[in-house]
Amino acid sequence: MSAPVVRAILEHIPVERVLTAPESVEGLSRDQAAWAPYGRPAAVVRATCTQDVVAVVRACVEHRTPVVARGAGTGLSGGANAIDGCVVVALDAMDEIVEVNPLEQLAVVQPGVVNDDLRTAVAAHGLWYPPDPASSPWSTIGGNVATNAGGLCCVKYGVTRDYVLALEMVNGLGEVVRLGRRTAKGVAGYDLAGLVVGSEGTLGIVTEVTVRLRPLPAPATTIAGFFSSLTDAGTAVRAIAAAGVTPSALELIDRHCLRAVDEWKNMGLSADAEAVLLARVDEPGEAGHAQAERVVACFREAGAGWAERSTDEQEADALLAARRLAYPALERLGPVVTEDVCVPKEHVPEMLGRIEKTAARHDIVIANIAHAGDGNLHPMLITPPGDDAAKDRAQTAFDEIIADAIALGGTVTGEHGVGLLKRRGLAAEVAPEVMAMHHAVKRALDPHGVLNPGKVLT
Amino acid sequence: MSAPVVRAILEHIPVERVLTAPESVEGLSRDQAAWAPYGRPAAVVRATCTQDVVAVVRACVEHRTPVVARGAGTGLSGGANAIDGCVVVALDAMDEIVEVNPLEQLAVVQPGVVNDDLRTAVAAHGLWYPPDPASSPWSTIGGNVATNAGGLCCVKYGVTRDYVLALEMVNGLGEVVRLGRRTAKGVAGYDLAGLVVGSEGTLGIVTEVTVRLRPLPAPATTIAGFFSSLTDAGTAVRAIAAAGVTPSALELIDRHCLRAVDEWKNMGLSADAEAVLLARVDEPGEAGHAQAERVVACFREAGAGWAERSTDEQEADALLAARRLAYPALERLGPVVTEDVCVPKEHVPEMLGRIEKTAARHDIVIANIAHAGDGNLHPMLITPPGDDAAKDRAQTAFDEIIADAIALGGTVTGEHGVGLLKRRGLAAEVAPEVMAMHHAVKRALDPHGVLNPGKVLT
Repeated sequence: MSAPVVRAILEHIPVERVLTAPESVEGLSRDQAAWAPYGRPAAVVRATCTQDVVAVVRACVEHRTPVVARGAGTGLSGGANAIDGCVVVALDAMDEIVEVNPLEQLAVVQPGVVNDDLRTAVAAHGLWYPPDPASSPWSTIGGNVATNAGGLCCVKYGVTRDYVLALEMVNGLGEVVRLGRRTAKGVAGYDLAGLVVGSEGTLGIVTEVTVRLRPLPAPATTIAGFFSSLTDAGTAVRAIAAAGVTPSALELIDRHCLRAVDEWKNMGLSADAEAVLLARVDEPGEAGHAQAERVVACFREAGAGWAERSTDEQEADALLAARRLAYPALERLGPVVTEDVCVPKEHVPEMLGRIEKTAARHDIVIANIAHAGDGNLHPMLITPPGDDAAKDRAQTAFDEIIADAIALGGTVTGEHGVGLLKRRGLAAEVAPEVMAMHHAVKRALDPHGVLNPGKVLT
Repeated sequence: MSAPVVRAILEHIPVERVLTAPESVEGLSRDQAAWAPYGRPAAVVRATCTQDVVAVVRACVEHRTPVVARGAGTGLSGGANAIDGCVVVALDAMDEIVEVNPLEQLAVVQPGVVNDDLRTAVAAHGLWYPPDPASSPWSTIGGNVATNAGGLCCVKYGVTRDYVLALEMVNGLGEVVRLGRRTAKGVAGYDLAGLVVGSEGTLGIVTEVTVRLRPLPAPATTIAGFFSSLTDAGTAVRAIAAAGVTPSALELIDRHCLRAVDEWKNMGLSADAEAVLLARVDEPGEAGHAQAERVVACFREAGAGWAERSTDEQEADALLAARRLAYPALERLGPVVTEDVCVPKEHVPEMLGRIEKTAARHDIVIANIAHAGDGNLHPMLITPPGDDAAKDRAQTAFDEIIADAIALGGTVTGEHGVGLLKRRGLAAEVAPEVMAMHHAVKRALDPHGVLNPGKVLT
């Protein structure tokens, strides 16, 4: 006998799109955040249109049942994890690119469109959707909007929120609303579209996104630097910031990651160095040449054993691919919890040093990748499968990394979102008065408390 | 006998900074929005620190008295207009530049810092604060934040919200809260800082702003085009968008404005053309050269009688100065109501044509300046002083321009804010469900209803 909320949903949505069998819902009940708890949903509904989402939310309001939206499930904070008895609404089948408009430099997409698919579609018009999380081959625009996803190019081009012009969403009353605008500018009312970006399904379920596009950038030059210590690499990052250079990417990969990718993919990556920095520069002409030279100089002055512009695009591509593959490569070795702290650029060397000491102190492996250029570090805590003692030590290390980031004026999450894993971190980062404002906004826009309750806020 | 709220304020703030005499408060009771009603405040308090603002807001909460924040009073929608019996808190004396940090590319400023003063201060470090409303010599960063001010460079560099990293503000409970972050990225909690930007003092009173900076751009090339009709100029704007060119400014000035500035300042401006377009291109090197050539070609193909890169920087500066002086120059001729619609770039020619027809139909003078490149038009309705019939016709024209902008998929306010003048427009632009969400957010963050009530929302 199915739950009343499921029966209510079945009045509107065909049974083949309302999954309730344990084996069908299990794989759709969580994202990729290790450690984050997840429950057993009453149903997973595969939405194919906005009205499906309306039907789900209205049924959930009527039955006071939590509703959890999910895209590709590549999240790393547990934001899409099911709650016992909830309804999961899966949006991956809503994957239509509705419009690409070169004149207005915008695209309108359904939430299930995969990030890379959007990028490919707009590239045909000479246009570019910059936000490029490492998950871009799999993650969806809806999920990117829910977490305000970042990526490699954000150091120069900004994050998802900077590219969201308008949203259609189903709000906490089950109403379809359009927020934002199609025009280049607009200040008519509060920026509710911007508020929804990064709210992880707690203020509404996004059913259509209008994104701003840019012209495709000029081809980039890649500069690689190999460092014998993490903190030297951090010093190079700070030096680039101090020099006023804005690369179009500035990524850090440590030897754990290089080795894991190489063991998986046999890419022939050098793992002699403790850390590699990869910078990309996409200013055209003489300005780009000068920037690249300054990056090389910063790398060398910070102690790089080797630093050059890549003359071999294949090698540069391999290193960037390694950056993108680091997370799945490490996951093969055991449960990985990915941290996502972001600190002021000035403190990148200090923060990397503290992470190393934390790993040593608690005898755990912490691999590092980082969007180093904007201070967004992803220390990844790896524990052997089944080793509960190591997991406990890793949990302590996780908490200490968060505390260190806050102490250095940083934030507990740069781009992955709060979800479940960073709720305590959020409460540690912001004042009680600010938490109260969060709760007030949540109550205002989700008066029945059905939208992904327990995520972001407790 | 002063009002109880004033007596409560006087317990915390010296009497010389609590103005109550009618002649003292009159000039501080309104902004520059002609037609917008304003009341008589119980007091104007000149704040010198955050605790002054706390004292005012707490007294206003206790006595359920409206509190209206003001900066330089250059607003054009009535957002800073006093309400009868309210307390106006003037923030212009809080004008300290607290920090300029070249490494993090940010500055921390008090709300009363004048936009141009911030720009000058950071330029000494090779840095740039892009948002440049035409009021930049007078308007304050606090006011810019309150309205999410735009400006000339926004077509390429974005608006105030794109540059606000963090805010300190006094919220509706009289608490000092810090929203946002100092790091380049961050998704810890809802984007309450972004929500406050553009909220016109209705969700909090901003007492400190942390702004993102950029490196100073390369010197720009100016391209001027003279057109014999407004719609031809609009066609050129559309052509530039269609060509995928992003100038660093693309401004329109019509003959009414050129003539008014020339009569005032004797700058020797040509007023033979019906409209002048001024484009600026700041890409360095060959790319910039190619862009400038494409702009010239777009101008000519759209019918410009004359279109050239300016070889005379003095002439280019004079035309840009005329753009900035257009509003005060026209104000000398009579009350000016400035419209602020923004339409998709595709519809710029159509919208300019409709404005011309509206002027003719109602027999009023409508001068036009526009941040044409992002579709943000500022038709200015000028009526002879004391001519009530003309004012009535202008009011009708004003409403028709708003209706036309909405019909073309645009917004009622691109950068000036809703204030008092666009409240009906806002309600026409967004759905009732979205208005209800606005009210819910307002109630959540201003539960006592003291923060600039009646502005933005009725």
